[in-house]
Amino acid sequence: MMTFHEELTAKTEGVEEIIRKYLPLEEGLQKTVFSASDYSVLNGGKRLRPLLMQETYTLFDGRGKGIEPFMAAIEYIHSSSLVHDDLPCMDNDEYRRGKKSTWAAFGEDMGVLAGDALLVYAFETASKALLQCNNPANVVKAMEVLANKAGIYGMIGGQTVDVELTGKALNEEQLQFIYNLKTGALIEASMMIGAIMADASAEDIRSAEAIASKVGVAFQIQDDILDVTSTTEVLGKPVGSDEKNNKTTYVTLYGLEEAKNKVASLTEEALELLSSLTGENLFLEKLIRYLITREN
Amino acid sequence: MMTFHEELTAKTEGVEEIIRKYLPLEEGLQKTVFSASDYSVLNGGKRLRPLLMQETYTLFDGRGKGIEPFMAAIEYIHSSSLVHDDLPCMDNDEYRRGKKSTWAAFGEDMGVLAGDALLVYAFETASKALLQCNNPANVVKAMEVLANKAGIYGMIGGQTVDVELTGKALNEEQLQFIYNLKTGALIEASMMIGAIMADASAEDIRSAEAIASKVGVAFQIQDDILDVTSTTEVLGKPVGSDEKNNKTTYVTLYGLEEAKNKVASLTEEALELLSSLTGENLFLEKLIRYLITREN
Repeated sequence: MMTFHEELTAKTEGVEEIIRKYLPLEEGLQKTVFSASDYSVLNGGKRLRPLLMQETYTLFDGRGKGIEPFMAAIEYIHSSSLVHDDLPCMDNDEYRRGKKSTWAAFGEDMGVLAGDALLVYAFETASKALLQCNNPANVVKAMEVLANKAGIYGMIGGQTVDVELTGKALNEEQLQFIYNLKTGALIEASMMIGAIMADASAEDIRSAEAIASKVGVAFQIQDDILDVTSTTEVLGKPVGSDEKNNKTTYVTLYGLEEAKNKVASLTEEALELLSSLTGENLFLEKLIRYLITREN
Repeated sequence: MMTFHEELTAKTEGVEEIIRKYLPLEEGLQKTVFSASDYSVLNGGKRLRPLLMQETYTLFDGRGKGIEPFMAAIEYIHSSSLVHDDLPCMDNDEYRRGKKSTWAAFGEDMGVLAGDALLVYAFETASKALLQCNNPANVVKAMEVLANKAGIYGMIGGQTVDVELTGKALNEEQLQFIYNLKTGALIEASMMIGAIMADASAEDIRSAEAIASKVGVAFQIQDDILDVTSTTEVLGKPVGSDEKNNKTTYVTLYGLEEAKNKVASLTEEALELLSSLTGENLFLEKLIRYLITREN
């Protein structure tokens, strides 16, 4: 029998294949934006969002490949947000995961265009689910959730507030808003779309959203904790950056102990909600526990 | 009886109302991105794309309000492209239509985020057509066309090549590519989506695409002509800017006479194709003629 980590590796490889399969075909004069998009997507991310989507789909008895275009789409949107976050007028990051960030490798104009291209291409990809699913209304509903959670009421809304308040001390409401929207919203979309495409009931879709909301916030707080408690070797990126950048985090606002307690309680609440559902997916339970107790 | 211009004014006001109606509701801490998005959309554009979409919908006997979300969506995408085109790392334009461009008014970071927000919000808006249309598969197909024509194979692909070749002399293939993709693709999407949402046949959707392709290129060449033949007063923006910027256009490549002939022949081809269809829409005929013979 495979260990959780073996299973995680195998499933992540499966997700990686799907992400590659749906990448745009490089034909035509616009080759720079194709290359910049591929470069941004194929950067060795953890692929959490498509994994959570797939496992939620399985939890609700989803069958067939109708979920695959959405798995690729949500990762393209996540990549797009990283590309634009790194821009000089935003976080001005020249490196990401030890490689040049997209704008640093391809120029600032191509950084803007590659982010735009990935954002739009996510919806083109998602629409391909129509061919693999016999309920077109579910495809529209899933696309609506994708747009809503990625957009002004979700990830981009959270990013707006994060950018505006950079360098300022945040209060509780502002920090919560940023965690819920910038990190939480796309994780909510992942689990909701898994449920929608599996034709789950409206109540089950709401439960998926509630579980994901807790997972998203806990995931972000765990990031804050690791920035204080980990080492650069284990984390794979510099630790102590939040303090250095004078950044308000859950740890700076409430202290390390309270942050750890919050992660533990959110995890338990998420897992309790998950176990109250009719379906069962042991891997999803382990995945949620792993995301929140991870060390990098 | 109304003149064409009275009818155009009335219809444009109707489109304006639809565009306003679907704008995001300003609730929450992310108010800057709401304001920047509204500012970008409500800039007094000609609203050609939603007009062409609505009239194509009517041509193919489309009934009801199912087309409205797409009319708003295509204008949000067009606005998004203008916001990002104006950025310092792209065309670096501080003004648009006599007002500060979005980044100049709200900051460069908010320029990036407002463009992103509008791009995603277009798809959220389009998905609302599900509630007003009894054929969900058509909604998915129309969203796919929207994404395809706005994205890497369409508008953004064209913009990539335009940006990369700025300041360089273009050959025929490059100029044609930019005209087809940067300007043509979104006009193709407008007419195709009108046809799709009216439940037109695959053949009629292809005809709508072919007509729009000719209209889009003719529209762009007319822009080139006006830059040479008009006055700043009539055009409402500086003339002679292409020559000043050393820009290759249809006029610089083929001369003014040939450019005028090309607009005339593309117009006739588009109108002939239009008249070969079963349906009839006299206003659409006049609108196409107007777009191409306009003086500003």
